[in-house]
Amino acid sequence: MFSRACQRLLLPRYLVQNSSKVLLSSKKALPVYTKNFTKFSNYRFYSSKGDVKLTSEVYPSLKRFEHFKRLTSDDIVHFKQVLDNDDNLVLTADLDFFNEDHLRKYKGQSSLVLKPKTTEQVSKILKYCNENSLPVVPQSGNTGLVGGSNPVFDEIVLSLANLNKIRSFDNVSGILKADAGVILENADAFLAENGFIFPLDLGAKGSCFIGGNVATNAGGLRLLRYGSLHGSVLGLEVVLPDGTVLNSLNSLRKDNTGFDLKQLFIGSEGTLGIITGVSVLCPTRPKAVNVAFLGVESYEAVQKAFTESKNYLSEILSAFEFMDLNSQKLSKEFLKQKSHPLDEEHPFYILIETSGSNKDHDDVKLESFLEYAMENEIVSDGVVAQDETQLKTLWNWRESVSEASTIYGGVYKYDVSIPIQDLYRLVEDVKVRLSDFNLIGETEEFPVKDAIGYGHIGDGNLHLNVAVRRYSKEVESCLEPFVYEWIKKHNGSISAEHGLGFQKKNYIGYSKSDIEINLMKQLKKLYDPKLILNPYKYINFDK
Amino acid sequence: MFSRACQRLLLPRYLVQNSSKVLLSSKKALPVYTKNFTKFSNYRFYSSKGDVKLTSEVYPSLKRFEHFKRLTSDDIVHFKQVLDNDDNLVLTADLDFFNEDHLRKYKGQSSLVLKPKTTEQVSKILKYCNENSLPVVPQSGNTGLVGGSNPVFDEIVLSLANLNKIRSFDNVSGILKADAGVILENADAFLAENGFIFPLDLGAKGSCFIGGNVATNAGGLRLLRYGSLHGSVLGLEVVLPDGTVLNSLNSLRKDNTGFDLKQLFIGSEGTLGIITGVSVLCPTRPKAVNVAFLGVESYEAVQKAFTESKNYLSEILSAFEFMDLNSQKLSKEFLKQKSHPLDEEHPFYILIETSGSNKDHDDVKLESFLEYAMENEIVSDGVVAQDETQLKTLWNWRESVSEASTIYGGVYKYDVSIPIQDLYRLVEDVKVRLSDFNLIGETEEFPVKDAIGYGHIGDGNLHLNVAVRRYSKEVESCLEPFVYEWIKKHNGSISAEHGLGFQKKNYIGYSKSDIEINLMKQLKKLYDPKLILNPYKYINFDK
Repeated sequence: MFSRACQRLLLPRYLVQNSSKVLLSSKKALPVYTKNFTKFSNYRFYSSKGDVKLTSEVYPSLKRFEHFKRLTSDDIVHFKQVLDNDDNLVLTADLDFFNEDHLRKYKGQSSLVLKPKTTEQVSKILKYCNENSLPVVPQSGNTGLVGGSNPVFDEIVLSLANLNKIRSFDNVSGILKADAGVILENADAFLAENGFIFPLDLGAKGSCFIGGNVATNAGGLRLLRYGSLHGSVLGLEVVLPDGTVLNSLNSLRKDNTGFDLKQLFIGSEGTLGIITGVSVLCPTRPKAVNVAFLGVESYEAVQKAFTESKNYLSEILSAFEFMDLNSQKLSKEFLKQKSHPLDEEHPFYILIETSGSNKDHDDVKLESFLEYAMENEIVSDGVVAQDETQLKTLWNWRESVSEASTIYGGVYKYDVSIPIQDLYRLVEDVKVRLSDFNLIGETEEFPVKDAIGYGHIGDGNLHLNVAVRRYSKEVESCLEPFVYEWIKKHNGSISAEHGLGFQKKNYIGYSKSDIEINLMKQLKKLYDPKLILNPYKYINFDK
Repeated sequence: MFSRACQRLLLPRYLVQNSSKVLLSSKKALPVYTKNFTKFSNYRFYSSKGDVKLTSEVYPSLKRFEHFKRLTSDDIVHFKQVLDNDDNLVLTADLDFFNEDHLRKYKGQSSLVLKPKTTEQVSKILKYCNENSLPVVPQSGNTGLVGGSNPVFDEIVLSLANLNKIRSFDNVSGILKADAGVILENADAFLAENGFIFPLDLGAKGSCFIGGNVATNAGGLRLLRYGSLHGSVLGLEVVLPDGTVLNSLNSLRKDNTGFDLKQLFIGSEGTLGIITGVSVLCPTRPKAVNVAFLGVESYEAVQKAFTESKNYLSEILSAFEFMDLNSQKLSKEFLKQKSHPLDEEHPFYILIETSGSNKDHDDVKLESFLEYAMENEIVSDGVVAQDETQLKTLWNWRESVSEASTIYGGVYKYDVSIPIQDLYRLVEDVKVRLSDFNLIGETEEFPVKDAIGYGHIGDGNLHLNVAVRRYSKEVESCLEPFVYEWIKKHNGSISAEHGLGFQKKNYIGYSKSDIEINLMKQLKKLYDPKLILNPYKYINFDK
């Protein structure tokens, strides 16, 4: 812990207890495909109690598109032929894993899951579905947070899980080509062996697929350093709704020959085409990584620390995350820990990560920053990880907040972009509102346990989690559209990284103009005139 | 100069003569708009001899689209009204500057140049043109290299030169919002005052506009460090052909609410809409910059140096440029210099730039790399700049190659992406072919003076310049489609950064599949059904 006395020593001491047993994710041997269902058992346990209600029952006004055909046994026979009559690739029973989202808020009624092994099979499936007006939901790791990858009614689930091969890697240019169904953590472990790093990292890395990451334009923990996928994805292989395979999976860093079509599919959440392959530019893996965990007394101090960290750490700053006190209290319960990295409580915590090529240089830069921050009373207390285990433990206090928010029963998650100076005020205003509506409290009668805030300050990205004992219409209508109106008033985005999916499709108007929404509808109709791909999501076509 | 003896000293000495008088570009006070015509007089002087032939005469098979209306005096009266009857904004005489490209290869026959001052005026102009089927060429700094911003027949030129204001800058997030017509160098100088840097730099920075940079997806000198504009541009204000203003000029680093429409306009070369405003994420300006200029004996050594520089310099590597010997001979003539930074000749030269936040740390990293490279005989000789003037001088030996290629009369420029290992072989093969056709030689009878290669190794981007004494169909047909076929065979791109424009529109098939070209045509027809925006370019609609 830093004390005023130790500043002059420039030698931060690390006092976190070694608690490797609480680490949730561990690196695996690679590249092996891990069955999703096993991976998700933990999430399921924590995410909710009881059965998940059918989405169609929770939203009775939502109607199935009448132009969609009902699935028949003839269709299933056809799909079996396309998938080489391999019974492992055509599932018709025990489909809860695919029908339910992992937050257990949404549940569809699909009776068919297809798990093709090749791009050609995906193409044949979509061509048939398009000709026969059969709706399809593409599904990657099913780690989405807005119900975007689960059916709503009887849509066929097309799982990318069997498209899971690394295709090639060039260790001069750092360009990786891989199937869309490769698990993010597996891709990164493969790259680590070659001295490179995947330019994206996020909590669900052990389960999410890189194709799903691209389809949802995932941001994650190191966007600050490596930028958005719109910059690092060099090419995509995409199957369009009519079965056409659009292949731009090139190995070139620069290509200015025509519209950059692949960009349309990055963040389109499976509504324009199904991504089957990804070409991505990977940076050199940093040789030295430091993590500091700091306590600060106000949100103003969090902002000051951010500005100064950019100044002092510049090119080695790879993450700047903040958490409020209550988020850490939830993590403590979830992790079943008696102590926290910092002995005393602070209103806010910051996790700073540096990644560089020279440990000595990085240490000097980090120490200069910490010295400045302590001397100027921006930071009150802090620890710096001294080894890989401590580093993971500190990250775990940040990464576990998402799951910790669900331990009381469920969570309403709002993942929003707001200009930095206004960012935390949303959490405060939501708490006041929940209190005004008498919905929040310590005892079982109140549906809401707490509202917490944390996120990526560097990206202006707040995660507002309303931890609930049970999902209820009352809480939902207290929060929505209040949260979205608040964000619109502050020129923010109602979805920084989670996407629109099912949850936010009715609220797109809070972030986009009618002109933009009409242009989106135009594009959707151009590529998918029968609306077979991921229907009832993203853009509202029924009003 | 490094010698084997000085390696152990780890103290490279700088031997370049102070030659600040040869510096072509100098920083200006800001933000002041500089009249383009003055800026270009230098280029004009060097770029060619004699008059420029009309594009329509050089390509007689090209026909004016019959559905376009001819401009009338009534139209001009209308445009004058839209532009507040300000005669400075409606030009009808002395239009050579706008009709000719700066390489003096193309010349249109426009009789009207409009210079609106507001987005609303741009909107009114386009609405009228669309309703009346009047074709329009948007023009930024007119620094393009493929004839993309000049008329072909009688298209109206819409110049963005008067949309030249910085709109806002946030020095916490680093987000700049500016009009499309701000000169790149002016934008960067404004950012420098605030401790930030524009995430793009290129030779034409003193004349090109940031809107044109985005419209052509310019890559430039520091893509290696700051990534592509698809990653750093956060929002755009675009006027669509029917006059609709699409405004996504937000200040958010992350926004996953719908298709990322702005991406379509990045690199669309003014064929889908006219960019009037740009929101861009700017990095912290590096406090320390080093430049090393090295001589190496083979192209294999260039590649080795690149791999090792990524390893040793990692997060501080901001440019890795290479030049062949003959490119430096041309620069020497152009710069009227008697000596070169390196005393002896080498088959290849490398310019390495580092940018970081701590000069001492960067020096150590660079010296470690140079020591390794010398000891392992990857590099034969080299100098490191010791001050800002020397740094600019070294960069000037790289940046002047483009203009130096034109001093004998003109240049055929090929800006291509090729997997790194094959990259330089294109230059060698082109030389052999020109020789086989008896077109290259030292005396006046040969149309070709030399074929040289240089470019951004870090991006797999080669500039092949064929320096000619005169433009001729003979040379052109010797080079094309030969060069494009060669690139297709090696899985490259026929345009890494210059775009398609007029020059390469017939060759897009060498880099894109029929499926991709058809999707592009679909989009063009969706946004611009009358094809009024930048016609006869980019995608071929007349075959």
